[in-house]
Amino acid sequence: MQNNLLKKNEVGVFALGGLGEVGKNMYVVEYQDEILVIDSGILFPEDHLLGIDYVIPDYTYLFENQDKIKALIITHGHEDHIGGIPYLLRQVKVPKIYASGIAVGLIKNKLEKHKGFRVPIIEYQEYEKIVLGKLSISFFRTNHSIPDSYGIAIHTPEGVIVHTGDFKFDFTPTGPDASYHRIADLGRKGVLLLLSDSTNAELTDFTKSESVVSENIKDIFTKIDGRIIVATFASNVHRVQQIVEASVATNRKVAVYGRSMLRTLEVGRDMGYIKAPQGTFIDPHHLKRYPNEQMTIICTGSQGEPMAALSRIAAGTHRQISLQNGDTVIFSSSPIPGNQEGVSKTINMLFRRGANVITNSPLTDTHTSGHAGQEEQKLMLKLIKPKFFMPIHGEYRMLKIHSKIGINTGVRKGNEFVLDNGDVLAVTRRSARVAGKVQAGSVYIDGSGIGDIGSVVIRDRKLLSEDGLLSAIVTVDKETMKLVGQPVITSRGFIYMREHEELTSEMSQLVGTEVQNKLSNSTTINISYLKKTMTRVLSKYIYDKTERNPMIMPVIMIVNN
Amino acid sequence: MQNNLLKKNEVGVFALGGLGEVGKNMYVVEYQDEILVIDSGILFPEDHLLGIDYVIPDYTYLFENQDKIKALIITHGHEDHIGGIPYLLRQVKVPKIYASGIAVGLIKNKLEKHKGFRVPIIEYQEYEKIVLGKLSISFFRTNHSIPDSYGIAIHTPEGVIVHTGDFKFDFTPTGPDASYHRIADLGRKGVLLLLSDSTNAELTDFTKSESVVSENIKDIFTKIDGRIIVATFASNVHRVQQIVEASVATNRKVAVYGRSMLRTLEVGRDMGYIKAPQGTFIDPHHLKRYPNEQMTIICTGSQGEPMAALSRIAAGTHRQISLQNGDTVIFSSSPIPGNQEGVSKTINMLFRRGANVITNSPLTDTHTSGHAGQEEQKLMLKLIKPKFFMPIHGEYRMLKIHSKIGINTGVRKGNEFVLDNGDVLAVTRRSARVAGKVQAGSVYIDGSGIGDIGSVVIRDRKLLSEDGLLSAIVTVDKETMKLVGQPVITSRGFIYMREHEELTSEMSQLVGTEVQNKLSNSTTINISYLKKTMTRVLSKYIYDKTERNPMIMPVIMIVNN
Repeated sequence: MQNNLLKKNEVGVFALGGLGEVGKNMYVVEYQDEILVIDSGILFPEDHLLGIDYVIPDYTYLFENQDKIKALIITHGHEDHIGGIPYLLRQVKVPKIYASGIAVGLIKNKLEKHKGFRVPIIEYQEYEKIVLGKLSISFFRTNHSIPDSYGIAIHTPEGVIVHTGDFKFDFTPTGPDASYHRIADLGRKGVLLLLSDSTNAELTDFTKSESVVSENIKDIFTKIDGRIIVATFASNVHRVQQIVEASVATNRKVAVYGRSMLRTLEVGRDMGYIKAPQGTFIDPHHLKRYPNEQMTIICTGSQGEPMAALSRIAAGTHRQISLQNGDTVIFSSSPIPGNQEGVSKTINMLFRRGANVITNSPLTDTHTSGHAGQEEQKLMLKLIKPKFFMPIHGEYRMLKIHSKIGINTGVRKGNEFVLDNGDVLAVTRRSARVAGKVQAGSVYIDGSGIGDIGSVVIRDRKLLSEDGLLSAIVTVDKETMKLVGQPVITSRGFIYMREHEELTSEMSQLVGTEVQNKLSNSTTINISYLKKTMTRVLSKYIYDKTERNPMIMPVIMIVNN
Repeated sequence: MQNNLLKKNEVGVFALGGLGEVGKNMYVVEYQDEILVIDSGILFPEDHLLGIDYVIPDYTYLFENQDKIKALIITHGHEDHIGGIPYLLRQVKVPKIYASGIAVGLIKNKLEKHKGFRVPIIEYQEYEKIVLGKLSISFFRTNHSIPDSYGIAIHTPEGVIVHTGDFKFDFTPTGPDASYHRIADLGRKGVLLLLSDSTNAELTDFTKSESVVSENIKDIFTKIDGRIIVATFASNVHRVQQIVEASVATNRKVAVYGRSMLRTLEVGRDMGYIKAPQGTFIDPHHLKRYPNEQMTIICTGSQGEPMAALSRIAAGTHRQISLQNGDTVIFSSSPIPGNQEGVSKTINMLFRRGANVITNSPLTDTHTSGHAGQEEQKLMLKLIKPKFFMPIHGEYRMLKIHSKIGINTGVRKGNEFVLDNGDVLAVTRRSARVAGKVQAGSVYIDGSGIGDIGSVVIRDRKLLSEDGLLSAIVTVDKETMKLVGQPVITSRGFIYMREHEELTSEMSQLVGTEVQNKLSNSTTINISYLKKTMTRVLSKYIYDKTERNPMIMPVIMIVNN
């Protein structure tokens, strides 16, 4: 299928996910009959109550244009950039995946669980330039909260498009430096369009360096006599290494808990990111063999996730670890918006069990973000000097603020594009315009299914969660057109019906009378009409009596056939 | 009923709400046959999805001891201190209510809506000492985010108990000063027990002064040419006055939107807290008569509440106000934990409609808290010099941190009490002990009902919200013990059943076979057993097929009787 939004010499650039949201990143660069896809992420829904595990982009456009796809290119190994790969591969033919370093391990690990994928995963190196038809790609290393994060330069016949990936500039990083000179070189030679990370566009500062956090963690460790429990993001391999180093420096053994943290440890040690003297890591089952002052526990649960290790420790339901007076819990993390309540509950429980708790604050600095603040965004813009600018990776206000930063640092007014998912930016060496829209949206993943949860189901769950459900079941004799017995009223999540027998019997009578009336005035059983009638009379009656609006589920059973 | 937890000379002090939570404040001081109740608040549930409007304390203890109650004393007019009064009065006989200033107006306003309450509301003055049987009370003014906030001193035969109410120390307040000398005088004469506000125990600073906010708001106003929309807490009367003053200083008219904000304006002007030259306030319907640069709009919705004025403005559904380019929205507020997502959505929508948005940040300082930071908590402790210390008004970790602050400022170790709601502290001039527990808990208010929503209903709503509900209805002929027709499967919030007809028909067959089996092996219809069987087979089948756990609602209809 030809993309009829684009003229022949135009390069199309658009997001299928990542604009107006933090998550499910997926950007597409299209030129004539070729498509490059950058990243394939998931989004963790803000609202944990509606039973949705995560959200992926609508892949329809890619499915319909799958013959054009040359490759999927991964910037780094975070879930909001790689988590959607198994779902994408089930629906869309992708000839190969390019990724680097730890992302390769994480993607392979992910695909092993979903058998039958045979797509080659090719590891790219920073110095490479890879030709993929009329387009080619090169790379530059950035700093981020997972090792091996890269920005991508897409070399098109119309000019270079730079996608920063997730980045910050950390002048004293735990891992290697960002490739300042490669970035500067791209800018010197001329960049047509910059797509840049907007996550921290509201932060007026420079994001703090990892080495500040590292120093603080070491400092805190030297002051603590008892057992130390540190919760952090499992993907932050550098941070885990810092915690290990602080433990070694204070003569502590390290035990690791939580599935994703154990995977980090395994991959991190395999790849040489996590290093420690022989005997530092102990078997989690041997915890009791070591005195408290010689133990560090690293675990998941820094976001208050109910099933994670730290939450179970706090609740007293962890199999191996029970809190003791003198234990100190360090959060080397900040709550992601939406998780504050969960984190707050965890902290309260930890305090109740007598633990000391150290959270990230301006006084402790036990955590720093992986994303560029405004000053770093400006530095990127100054180095890249793009003709056109499209802020990506952020909610609308972040994109908007970032676009202003672009203009303040030299992008010509009118050359900045704050877009939505699906909006196609068509660029040539001279011009840029919004050419139209391709299909983009959200697909909900719940349990093992893909996309069988639609917005109606979500809306129903929301209604159910507010006032519960009330069901009325009416049995009709097909021949006599008379009700059989009394309508049955039953409910869940509404009120205790057993304590409201009067209400129940009134509802049953009301529905019975109303349905019998309609039946008596009719010669056929119009099920949909009867159901509407039942819903109407019950809704009104219940609201009048209780000021509530439970969902009404009318059921009509027909007997005697 | 005698409180058999207390010895005759002991004064009992306990909370029915306010410990381990921020909200539904209610503290009780009991001495022999007399009870004083301090505050009667509600709690807004953190989780807005379960359809609970708010939570009140369990009043059982007060109901059973209502003959002992001498008075309800109100510290200030916030909902978490007065919102429960109508519910309390419906259940418990309260002879009189003491309140002061704006709280009197707000309580009267509240009780007018609930007719039939004849309890006298007596306005106290700061210089008064009121004798209520063997106990008497006096007052000291504090600073807080609503005018007329007071601390209460309860003079008992065993010594003085001080309850700070909600407070901060603002050395340059918008309203009158706190009563430093009255507080110091209490301390000088000797205080047995201090109950002090713990809300900001995690804040290592002094809470910023209202006058800093006032200056910043004025400063921002002078820099803005277009229309200004300010959202703040309706109860923060001083803040509203500051916004009015900034408007007058920059030649702006003021229009006020939102029901609670209009009430603030009315009460505030009546009481002289809100003052402006004639003609400053305009009729909200006449908005279009004035040019944009001469308009300030003050409205509700600073917490992203979906139905509040600002949210409707942001969504484009407000009847009178539609956003224009050049409009500036100022949040003179901070999001309360749990509201971040709603606020974030509102801000994104405002940006989309082209408005500039100024939120509270270290750069703008458009808001400050009404609660004491650690330094102020220390000052209170230093001035009061209590023998015993019970941190109140906060989640567990806040109480715990505050208790340590108490010890660091001179409370003897062991004399601090971090308690839960219902825990009775028994004090005499020489001793303090936790004497036991009275009934305390949460009552959920939803719609017009009181307390008919129990924890089972809440749990059901949570389950419903996660995977929805699936109902299976089986009709059994009583005489033949055979199923009539096929079982009917219906669902809400699960998956689109119409798109999964195979699943539905398999479930129907499975349930039918299973129930018929059980019936054939039996001579009577054991409804509860059959229901359990239906739930079991369906749960397993559904989980195997979909990895989901919808709530199962089995229904058995019996015919032919």
